[in-house]
Amino acid sequence: MSQPDPSTGFAVTTPAFLSRLAEIVGEDGLLTDDVALDGYGRDETEDLHFQPEAVVLPRDTEQVSRVLAWANENLVPVTPRGAGTGLSGGALPVHRGLVLSLERLDRIRSIDSENLTVVAEAGVVTAELQRRVDEHGLFYPPDPASRETCQLGGNIAEDSAGPRCCLYGSTRRWVMGLEAVRPDGAILETGSRNLKDVAGYNLTQLLVGSEGTLAVVTAATLRLIPRPAATLTLALPFDRLEQAARAVCEIFRGGHSPAACELLESGAIQAVAASHPVPAQLNRCDALILIELHGDDTEQLLRRAAALGETAEQMGGDEVLLAKEPPEQRRLWEIREKVGEAVKQRSLYKEADAVVPRSALAELVRHARRAAARHRLEAICYGHAGDGNLHVSLVQGELDAEAWQEARDAAEEDLFRAVVSLGGTVSGEHGIGWTQRRYLPLAVGETELETMAAIKRLFDPRGILNPGKIFVE
Amino acid sequence: MSQPDPSTGFAVTTPAFLSRLAEIVGEDGLLTDDVALDGYGRDETEDLHFQPEAVVLPRDTEQVSRVLAWANENLVPVTPRGAGTGLSGGALPVHRGLVLSLERLDRIRSIDSENLTVVAEAGVVTAELQRRVDEHGLFYPPDPASRETCQLGGNIAEDSAGPRCCLYGSTRRWVMGLEAVRPDGAILETGSRNLKDVAGYNLTQLLVGSEGTLAVVTAATLRLIPRPAATLTLALPFDRLEQAARAVCEIFRGGHSPAACELLESGAIQAVAASHPVPAQLNRCDALILIELHGDDTEQLLRRAAALGETAEQMGGDEVLLAKEPPEQRRLWEIREKVGEAVKQRSLYKEADAVVPRSALAELVRHARRAAARHRLEAICYGHAGDGNLHVSLVQGELDAEAWQEARDAAEEDLFRAVVSLGGTVSGEHGIGWTQRRYLPLAVGETELETMAAIKRLFDPRGILNPGKIFVE
Repeated sequence: MSQPDPSTGFAVTTPAFLSRLAEIVGEDGLLTDDVALDGYGRDETEDLHFQPEAVVLPRDTEQVSRVLAWANENLVPVTPRGAGTGLSGGALPVHRGLVLSLERLDRIRSIDSENLTVVAEAGVVTAELQRRVDEHGLFYPPDPASRETCQLGGNIAEDSAGPRCCLYGSTRRWVMGLEAVRPDGAILETGSRNLKDVAGYNLTQLLVGSEGTLAVVTAATLRLIPRPAATLTLALPFDRLEQAARAVCEIFRGGHSPAACELLESGAIQAVAASHPVPAQLNRCDALILIELHGDDTEQLLRRAAALGETAEQMGGDEVLLAKEPPEQRRLWEIREKVGEAVKQRSLYKEADAVVPRSALAELVRHARRAAARHRLEAICYGHAGDGNLHVSLVQGELDAEAWQEARDAAEEDLFRAVVSLGGTVSGEHGIGWTQRRYLPLAVGETELETMAAIKRLFDPRGILNPGKIFVE
Repeated sequence: MSQPDPSTGFAVTTPAFLSRLAEIVGEDGLLTDDVALDGYGRDETEDLHFQPEAVVLPRDTEQVSRVLAWANENLVPVTPRGAGTGLSGGALPVHRGLVLSLERLDRIRSIDSENLTVVAEAGVVTAELQRRVDEHGLFYPPDPASRETCQLGGNIAEDSAGPRCCLYGSTRRWVMGLEAVRPDGAILETGSRNLKDVAGYNLTQLLVGSEGTLAVVTAATLRLIPRPAATLTLALPFDRLEQAARAVCEIFRGGHSPAACELLESGAIQAVAASHPVPAQLNRCDALILIELHGDDTEQLLRRAAALGETAEQMGGDEVLLAKEPPEQRRLWEIREKVGEAVKQRSLYKEADAVVPRSALAELVRHARRAAARHRLEAICYGHAGDGNLHVSLVQGELDAEAWQEARDAAEEDLFRAVVSLGGTVSGEHGIGWTQRRYLPLAVGETELETMAAIKRLFDPRGILNPGKIFVE
């Protein structure tokens, strides 16, 4: 046995540990070379890096269970990881130890096209699941921006969402049951394949969004629906952001029920336009709403689009662009999808995942601009306006590295304080993870935090599972 | 201090206790007379009766907190109660002590018609909430059969549903946040008014459906949507139940997305027809599917109804009855709504709340009939077929009281064993409560039960809150 590291209380990996792990996951399931460790020490969150001591790649739930039971007994910290596309550092091994990657649990176990459900393992890539169920005419709505690379396990850990979750709800709403491994190695089977189920406490919904701190999800039973028969995309340009923000509210009050309702402010549009064709009419507007409608047939959707266009016009909107055919629809959606990359290319940035009640969208943008300006930064706002969820990119611009870090943290804190004062919260879909921990007490009271921490201790009494996340220690 | 009752470990109420309670809730907030206690010792579950020692009627959250803190300190069992319309004995004081009725927390605190949310207290009657938000053109979908008397707190405790939850989901999906009091008196504020929120563990969804065993819900923030612009009701009669069951599956696979999809087998229709006019065409069928469609306009719904009618015909259905106007729609829905009462009037019965994956509906009915016949009972099946959730009424018929009790319990156990073998579960919307405890281990594994029991102990270490429910002690 090795001595625990006095600074963390956790055991330090020894050659004996590594050979025990290799027995469990096989030689090919254990990575210890520096290049591999470096990669598994990063995710999509800023420029953070925490080198793990080893990476394990189990092949099945049984191996996950054995790795966890062993780590729990030996006080080795374990950080579960999907594709590493997270934006709050949730998959980073901040206390070193092991990274437990679920990437090789990548089977779709069954598709039930009679009951419209699928059982898929944690390492299945989200878009791959969508393509596979689409072959059966079925549809899995959650569409995080990273869907071509991110994995279901990560989506479940963070309760990921995306544009279409405006109508369909986030990952949470599609998870009927989970297979998950507790830190002591016990395998939990929560929920069922049933559309209604009140047999005991809802462990499924407790685990969704718990960011891999309570148990490691190895597979999920997901609900599906038939592929929408018709879709229509609309771009609604506005001369003033305030008008666009009010229009978003009116669109929902009016019962137009969009499948997606995204907002891009001019800074976001211009960032995209620097390297991508954007129709002139959209490029010169102050704010753009992108809408997707899903329904029975195009005729129905055209009527709905006309009503929606009237609402937009009443709110001061310019002429609506309508895309009926998939290629035109894709061209409009590309503008939205390219924002993240376009902002990244300009300079270093920090993305804050702010949520407010929908009626406070314009105020959110005002606060974001003010918080940025106060610290000599620029703020670019865009995202899931229909859910009141905007991503605020704080951009480095002309600041040097040291000034940038200080300014970024100060502006972000100002922003989240303002968000909470508007009735909002500090994360809509990116999770708390490592980078947002200090903001959690802004949004969640002491009694609630204490209850959450007690649940964490209940599931993970030795504190080995994804330590350092969600809670400030 | 009084001595604890050795048989339960709980304190027995003394005059000193009662005067302390009267200090907290006022003289008018404390009931101790036999007639009142008798009423609060019953609910809608069969013919059970457990007389409480006293009933407290707090006026606000603060009083609920003080009652609980006091009871927790003094080891007095507390059974929270809404309107007492439950069907699993969840509100019955099986260990005596106090009934804590939320009926006087009956305020709608605010309706936010910009953000489509409402904050309502636990004692608000569900239908009253629906009428109040309807005045703003807004719609709260969950529609339990008891909606004219049941209260939101009870709906949240049991995750109640109803016909329209087929499209809209059960109570759970509409709860954004809760105000709830822990057994130690601490007031929890979970969730928020935000449509997306991943700030910490989802305590809200842990509490919904926990049947008042973890905390007492005092108020909820609920999501609303605009009232549907158009509705249409269809009655689809079938000569054979198997055809109807298959048609239910096809309707969902075909993407017809009904707002409600109910099934009545002939026994249910005939029970209603004994005292209520039922169109001849429906009265002579073996099974009836009732569909409600919600959409943008009647034209759209008529097209959808035509497609749905074709599906039904392909499955062997007879001519479809279509109801466009509210009075005709109500006449069709009355047939469904009268089943419960009609079955009750025939003789004593026990209603099992069975759920299976939708494709197993026909098998569920076959198993129900077989289980009933084996014990000389009759089974009448009806309910939320779209969710795979049928209520199976086991009817006393000619059996004497003693034989009935034995037969009922044996048939119910046979039924639930069959349900679980079909991949189903032992409660869809009535909860586990007191009467279903012994079936929970059929559907939920040991590791999961142990995790649930640990969560119970975490919230309620002294075991005073709704003791005797969900778990077999």
